[in-house]
Amino acid sequence: MKFGGTSVASLERIRAVAAIVRREVDAGHSVAVVVSAMAGETNRLVELCAEAGEPAPALDARNVEYDAVVATGEQVTSGILALVMQNLGYRARSWQGWQIPLKTDAAHGKARISEIDDAELGEAIDNGEIAVVTGFQGIGRGGRISTLGRGGSDISAVALAAALNAARCDIYTDVDGVYTTDPRLTKQARRISKISYDEMLEMASVGAKVLQTRSVELAKAYKAPVRVLSSFDPPDAPGPGTLICDEDDIVEQNIVSTVTPDFDEATVTILAVPDEPGRAAGIFTALAGANINIDMIVQSASRQSGFANISFTTKEGDLDRAVKLLKDEQEKIGFKSLQSDRRVAKVSVIGVGMKSHAGVAATMFNTLAEKGINIQNISTSEIKISVLIDSDAAEYAVRALHEAYGLDHKKQPAQA
Amino acid sequence: MKFGGTSVASLERIRAVAAIVRREVDAGHSVAVVVSAMAGETNRLVELCAEAGEPAPALDARNVEYDAVVATGEQVTSGILALVMQNLGYRARSWQGWQIPLKTDAAHGKARISEIDDAELGEAIDNGEIAVVTGFQGIGRGGRISTLGRGGSDISAVALAAALNAARCDIYTDVDGVYTTDPRLTKQARRISKISYDEMLEMASVGAKVLQTRSVELAKAYKAPVRVLSSFDPPDAPGPGTLICDEDDIVEQNIVSTVTPDFDEATVTILAVPDEPGRAAGIFTALAGANINIDMIVQSASRQSGFANISFTTKEGDLDRAVKLLKDEQEKIGFKSLQSDRRVAKVSVIGVGMKSHAGVAATMFNTLAEKGINIQNISTSEIKISVLIDSDAAEYAVRALHEAYGLDHKKQPAQA
Repeated sequence: MKFGGTSVASLERIRAVAAIVRREVDAGHSVAVVVSAMAGETNRLVELCAEAGEPAPALDARNVEYDAVVATGEQVTSGILALVMQNLGYRARSWQGWQIPLKTDAAHGKARISEIDDAELGEAIDNGEIAVVTGFQGIGRGGRISTLGRGGSDISAVALAAALNAARCDIYTDVDGVYTTDPRLTKQARRISKISYDEMLEMASVGAKVLQTRSVELAKAYKAPVRVLSSFDPPDAPGPGTLICDEDDIVEQNIVSTVTPDFDEATVTILAVPDEPGRAAGIFTALAGANINIDMIVQSASRQSGFANISFTTKEGDLDRAVKLLKDEQEKIGFKSLQSDRRVAKVSVIGVGMKSHAGVAATMFNTLAEKGINIQNISTSEIKISVLIDSDAAEYAVRALHEAYGLDHKKQPAQA
Repeated sequence: MKFGGTSVASLERIRAVAAIVRREVDAGHSVAVVVSAMAGETNRLVELCAEAGEPAPALDARNVEYDAVVATGEQVTSGILALVMQNLGYRARSWQGWQIPLKTDAAHGKARISEIDDAELGEAIDNGEIAVVTGFQGIGRGGRISTLGRGGSDISAVALAAALNAARCDIYTDVDGVYTTDPRLTKQARRISKISYDEMLEMASVGAKVLQTRSVELAKAYKAPVRVLSSFDPPDAPGPGTLICDEDDIVEQNIVSTVTPDFDEATVTILAVPDEPGRAAGIFTALAGANINIDMIVQSASRQSGFANISFTTKEGDLDRAVKLLKDEQEKIGFKSLQSDRRVAKVSVIGVGMKSHAGVAATMFNTLAEKGINIQNISTSEIKISVLIDSDAAEYAVRALHEAYGLDHKKQPAQA
């Protein structure tokens, strides 16, 4: 069982979590509970570190101290939850990453788990003790505390579930499952009972916030069944949530499972780049060097003029840095001018069924054309089609696609 | 070097501490820095634990979790100070108790240090790295985090100084040294250059707040020279502080070193207790069982009546509990009535010179008699005389005794 920051945001919330844990223990399950820092606590600690000095370059000694400071957030939550469980009459103890030990590499601030020695932990659980484990952290080289980066508590939970051969990894969060689309955009959004690892990976890659890529990759690698469910349901009437599992364990496959919008997009168009080998590489090498993630690249070459236009998307938060970097390099790269636009959104349809069904892309393009929505850019994978459109049209597009792929309530699939 | 909670209360204060550490390092010293939690942080964490459940009995599993939670305070300070030192261009790292390891017994919440393995720590310091150590905590049985109780950071500092064979242990605090009496009571109070371990022990025992008994005992046992000085002095113009050292290292001994008042006193008088063996023992066993510390016991037996009056002092905070407990036991103990009084204070004169000089007690009693101050109770040790007086007279008594023992500015000792 894993509980994130909003689920343990206050002592009242921690007591609610304890009631959920109690329910599972009383039902006869052996339980390890992974907890995040109380909501707001990690940010407070990160801010304190930032005030103590300029941000540190990767793998610097400063990152090691940053990890030692930030890891205290989960240490507090784990101790408090163990106390609350003890006061309810249960045997419980907190486990810090270094106590297990959950070993990581030395990439402080974004460490990767290298090994979990679950002998002592597993023995305690087998003896009927509730293990309350600090998420997000482990022990790196030289016995120093390391942290796994944002979303790290999910990674801790999935990795522990795999190491302990857990029957299931329940990720409790502030939503009650994975939805066919963002419920804030349409009342037609439905909770999905089962979804495959690959679809969740695509969802994470296009900006869905439920689970981050690394935790899903890990679950897939170890075939660990992960359930997403709400910690805000009454403890005695939990919702069923969404099970994330192997494609083969899902009997009734939808062709398209989700329509996922991403409003955190911006485009940059570089006009009249000399159409010579290495020019595009120079641009993207510079952006990568500044740690700016780019996506959806389109190059429209024009052989006659000897120039090409290059356009790409990036996250809105990176746009200003990207534009500044490119303007600083304008002379070196040799382009004529540059345009940027924040009023764009990416809408993706995702479904493993695409692999075996034709016509999914056609349905998408026809639907958007019928609604008069212009597609600025397209990218695809084996189980995903993404289009970049005007952000003002995104909500309309999501509703239309949700209906077109038969995801609305009480309707049968309409596509091929 | 040890810095307490008020010395690291904010990032601004931590930067001031860094400037002091820097001065010592630049002067060529190898340095280990022991830090407390930022002021207020320990109380916040203790409060969070208290809200999570009722206070735990000693050695309970709950104390283990309490320690895991409360220990995060020092962990944050040590990481932040290490970061600040690094940003000043120094090599520094934080050391948690378990990383050293600083081993303790299993008395969680008030653990005692059993062993310090200083091999790795000492090597790091010898290599020129500044070691920033979390005070107050260590690692107990089963690899669990333990804490040393209030004042524990001083104990950590003295124990580390002893283990590392440090030339000196500098305790930085919010006062600039040990004074002949409380400077708030008289402008005649003077900072003492050198004071013996035994005198400091007596001062701690009569309520002086500078250093707690356990840290002074430890310093005495290992003959570790401890200096008390202010972290609020300008880093480039530090005050000399007070050196706490062996009696033999103090050339010019005062007969009396300090006049120490303690206003945190209350008296309980039990009237007409049957004068039989075991009655007094019953009273004090009951009080000890409730963890109520008592002091200055006087029994005035009257063989004729067959009854005795018993009076003792306790801390003001314990008075109500003591009175309630005794009233509950009144029938069993068989006393007639009970009186209590908060308007008392204890004034102690302390000095190793008493051992070889007569007349110290006489000076005290004569001085108080001259000023018309009534002595309610007296207790003595080899190097201390304490009297219990009306609290309203305490300030006057302190000034008179301070003068009588020649502790005022620019005067020569007046007593024998």
